[in-house]
This record gives sequence, structure tokens and C-alpha cells, in this order.
Amino acid sequence: MTELKKDSPNINAAGRWISYREEIKVLDCTIRDGGLMNNHNFDDKILKAVYNANVDAGVDYMEMGYKASKRIFSPDEYGAWKFCTEDDIRKIVGDNDSQLKLSAMADTERTDYKTDILPKEQSVLDMIRTATYIHQIPTAIEIVQDAHDKGYETTINIMAVSTVQEYELDKALEFIAQSNVDYIYLVDSFGSLYSEQIHYLMQKYLKYALETGKQVGMHAHNNQQLAYANTIESIILGANILDGSMAGLGRGAGNCPTELLLGFLHNPKFKLRPVLECIQKYIEPMRKDLLWGYDVPYMITGLLNQHPRPAIKFNQTPDRGDLVKFFDQMIEED
Amino acid sequence: MTELKKDSPNINAAGRWISYREEIKVLDCTIRDGGLMNNHNFDDKILKAVYNANVDAGVDYMEMGYKASKRIFSPDEYGAWKFCTEDDIRKIVGDNDSQLKLSAMADTERTDYKTDILPKEQSVLDMIRTATYIHQIPTAIEIVQDAHDKGYETTINIMAVSTVQEYELDKALEFIAQSNVDYIYLVDSFGSLYSEQIHYLMQKYLKYALETGKQVGMHAHNNQQLAYANTIESIILGANILDGSMAGLGRGAGNCPTELLLGFLHNPKFKLRPVLECIQKYIEPMRKDLLWGYDVPYMITGLLNQHPRPAIKFNQTPDRGDLVKFFDQMIEED
Repeated sequence: MTELKKDSPNINAAGRWISYREEIKVLDCTIRDGGLMNNHNFDDKILKAVYNANVDAGVDYMEMGYKASKRIFSPDEYGAWKFCTEDDIRKIVGDNDSQLKLSAMADTERTDYKTDILPKEQSVLDMIRTATYIHQIPTAIEIVQDAHDKGYETTINIMAVSTVQEYELDKALEFIAQSNVDYIYLVDSFGSLYSEQIHYLMQKYLKYALETGKQVGMHAHNNQQLAYANTIESIILGANILDGSMAGLGRGAGNCPTELLLGFLHNPKFKLRPVLECIQKYIEPMRKDLLWGYDVPYMITGLLNQHPRPAIKFNQTPDRGDLVKFFDQMIEED
Repeated sequence: MTELKKDSPNINAAGRWISYREEIKVLDCTIRDGGLMNNHNFDDKILKAVYNANVDAGVDYMEMGYKASKRIFSPDEYGAWKFCTEDDIRKIVGDNDSQLKLSAMADTERTDYKTDILPKEQSVLDMIRTATYIHQIPTAIEIVQDAHDKGYETTINIMAVSTVQEYELDKALEFIAQSNVDYIYLVDSFGSLYSEQIHYLMQKYLKYALETGKQVGMHAHNNQQLAYANTIESIILGANILDGSMAGLGRGAGNCPTELLLGFLHNPKFKLRPVLECIQKYIEPMRKDLLWGYDVPYMITGLLNQHPRPAIKFNQTPDRGDLVKFFDQMIEED
């Protein structure tokens, strides 16, 4: 339908408007990113509901949480999904007798990956995702190499790319392209990127990734109500793995809502109804305890290309709702 | 920054990323579109607050409401902003001693435009906007001609374009291009259009409009969280008048939020703070009575390319929140 697609080396005829691109995978990060709002303390019934909904909806991957170091993060303070032990995961999924693959995220320098990530044959996990800042890339690549050697699919998610100098990003992508990683993720950590920037960055990521047979993913935040729109733009350009979360549950303004994303993807394997049911019964009721989703303070941090931390803090104070006060604070600090 | 812009005949050097395009106008439709949620019954203090905020924010146009026929709509049932009499407007704006221009909307076949729209020299209004379905175009053009002859700027807003056959749309645009209208609006009435469709339609509208010296506008709805994104795409392609509403106030899922739009536009004349203040003090407090904004039932009507009416009705019943029930109903009726 549009000439945009012709630009991309990653689009085949099946990627066009009315039909679908079979290669596109959806990764549900409801529990992992949502866990940032409640220190990863979810009831088992929530985990089971999200798992079952993902299986029924035809989602490709579900991220169970983090593989965080217990030396750095105390299990007294954080729930099970900060650590994702094999036992805890199996309590939810058994042997995961389904088409849904499971992933966990290992944050660079915050994980004891050598000991805590088991060889694939001992684990029900299928993929290890590594989140890294630009200055940690060599360490991230060691995690990827370790996970790859243990038998997992792997991703590298470069965080806060909207604050990275372009020549550093080029070097990083060149370096990552030489690794064993399967997917390189474009991550809009602050929800600050507009479609023109997504186009520019995604084309850059694709150039480096495709040269060495890798694919590109997209993880968006909704600070400016652009998470879904930017995910669509990424699809159009050729990204083949897309993060979504149910009702957008995630830190601050949250993520690209899975229910919107499944509506856009025309692959008959995806079913919307199980996701709507899970949202209605399990996700929406959490709003009485958790504050997430688009809100003007998150818009302001996104607009200013800043971490949502000050907005999250502000929304926990009695000043919540005093939009002008928050705006004045942020402009002053700028 | 991107090759998209090169395609458009309506982009000059001043339209690029870091700078701005001086021709771009913002039209605030908070009261007009929001009035669809409360039968146009707003307190005068709301009207004054929105007016003052628009003046202070450097917004170009404010739409005061409708010029609806009192023979068709009873003033017992509808508030002042369904009719926008000269006296009622002047109670809010005096002689409008500001740079802000004022508009009112005349719905085709629902307006006694010949008598109710005064000659411009007797009115504080600056622009008459005409909303029309595809089958009413000749009547819409009569309204435009009348308003033009009386001295107003004019627009034609073609509603529900996502349900119009392309050959009819081409004929309509060809016909409108020969009229005296100043702006032709692309209107995503159902919030069902994706960026690729916006690109396709906007380029078509621009082709017809620019040939006869007219400009194109964009009016988006947020059913799929794409109102702002689609407005940005319209800017990139060359639309020069953009509708926004404060906090997105508008029917159903609402409109493109003015606060997001002003954040994107880099023209120094636009100020965000007065809009945030108005939202905080006057718009957000209305949420206790009015339900608007993105919600899964609106997503479903958008996805199915249908009027939001069933979602609005459903959200007023005790079933509100039963997303699966609504989904099943809509699929069954489809």
C-alpha cells in the first residue's frame, strides 16, 4: 500500500497491508515490565492467567521476569519474578507444553548469569534477553555469548538510545552485529521518539542486523501516546519481533498494548479475545494498587527526553495532579 | 530528517525537524467535540478558561461549538454551545481582542445557516466549518459558499472517510477543489485509520487541494491511540491546520490531545503551560461526570471501522468493563 516498504530490505510480499508477514513475533512483557511497578510481586494466579492468555492468543514469547542477582537485590524486598528461578517458573507453566516460548531478562551488571542461567536442557526458558546501556556493550555481549553457548535464543536491548551519540551507536551496532545474538532491539526507554526518529534508527539497526543474519525488535513506551504507533512504524520498516503488554502494563506510561498490536497484525494465529478476557479479569483490577499508563507527567518526561523516574515519584506524592507544578519543576531542572 | 517530506509538494525548508513550519495552525475543538459528551452544556467558567488558555498558548483557532438548527434541536435539551448565538459567544469573549480566531461548526442538513450565520461584520466568529457526509457534498458546498460570501474563512470536513469508496472520494475532492473553501479536512471519524492509510489519503487530499490553492487539515480520533501519531504523520506530509482538544476531550475515545501536539510543534509562539493549567483546573475535574478517552470498547469499534456509538452506549450500562461481552456483541453484529 505504501512506498515506505520498498525501502526496507526486510519486507517480503507477505508483509503487505491486507495479508501478513509470517516472520513477525510478538513478545508479551506484561509481567517483566509490569513488575517494575510492584517490585515483581505478582500473585501466582496473575502469572497463570497471563500465561494461559498468551498461549490461547497465539503470542510467540512471554517474558517471565528478570534474572537478577540475589547478591545485589534482596529476595526480602523483591518478588519471585525479579529472579525467575526454574522452580518458580515451573510452578506456573509446568513443562510448558505449548507453542509459547518463555524468556527472562538479564540486566547487564545486575545478573549472576554464569550461575543463575542454567543450561537450556535443564530449563523451561527459551530465550535470554540482555538489557544494556551503551557503555556496557562488551559485558552484554558476554552474557549473550554465555546464553547462546548454553543453548538459548538471545537478544540485546540497547536502552536509552535517545541519549546516545550517533557515532557511538554505530560502533555499538557494528560490534553487536559480530556477536552471536539473534535479535537487536530498538528500545525507546523514555517514550521520547517520534516516527521520524523511529524510521531513522530502525533503518540503521536493520542495516547492521541484516548484514549478519540477525533480526531487529522494537520495545516502545507510551509517554507520548506513541508506543503503538512507533511499533507499527517498526513493522512497516521490517522489525520482526515486537514487545507488547496487556493493557500496556509497564513502568510509568507503560508499553505498547498487546490488544492494539494483535488488532493490527493479520496473522490468523493471533486471537484477541483471550487477551481481552485476561485484561478484564486480572490486569484492570490491579489498577486499584498500581498506577500505570499515559499521564501528563509522563508526557513531560518523554517530551524532555528524560527518564520517567521524576514523574513516577511525583505521582506518588500528594501533589499528584498538579501538572503545572511538575512542569515548572522539570523545566527548572532542565 | 526523512525522505517522506520530499514526496510532498506542501513542505518548505522551514518544515523540517528542529525548526518549524510557520504555516501550521492549531485549532482547539475542546468545547465543540467535547460538547458531544454533555449535550453542549458547559459552565461559562469552562468556556472562559478554555478561551483564555488558547489565547495564552498561542493557539490559532478555537471552535466554540455548533451552529445547529433550533427547529431540529430543542434548546430545552441542548446547551448554548449547540447553537453558538452571537450573544452567547460575546458573553465569553467580548469583542475577542486577541490573536485567537473563533470558529463554529455547521453540520450539513442540521443548520439554518442562511439565517443563523450572520454577516462577518456583525459577528465575532472568523471561520465556519462544515461537516458533511459524502452524499451531502453539494449541500455542504452551499453552506461554504454562503459563509464565504458573508466574509468567513471556511472548511469542509468529510466525515467517515474510512467507509467511503475511493472513486466517490475522488469525485468529492474534485468537486470541493472547485469551491471557495479554504481548508479541506481529512477526518478519521471512527479512529480506525493507520499511518499507511493516513499517508495514502493525505496525499490524495493534498493533490486536489493544492491544485486550487487550498490547504488540508487533520481531525483525528483516539480509538486506537493513534490520534496524535496520525496528526504527526499529517504534519510530515503537509497538512497545515490541525485539530486538538485539551486532555483529548471529545466524543468517545476523544481527539488528538492539544498538549501533545503543542509539544511536537516547535514554533515558539506556542506555549504548553497555559494548556496544562487549564487541563488541571477545568478539564480533568469534568471526568467525574464525563467519560472520555481511550478505552478497549472504543478500540474495538475503531478496529472494526465502526461508529463509536455502541461503545459509548455500552460504557453507560452496568456492563461497563465487561470487555469480552462487548467484543462478542460486536463480532456477532459484524
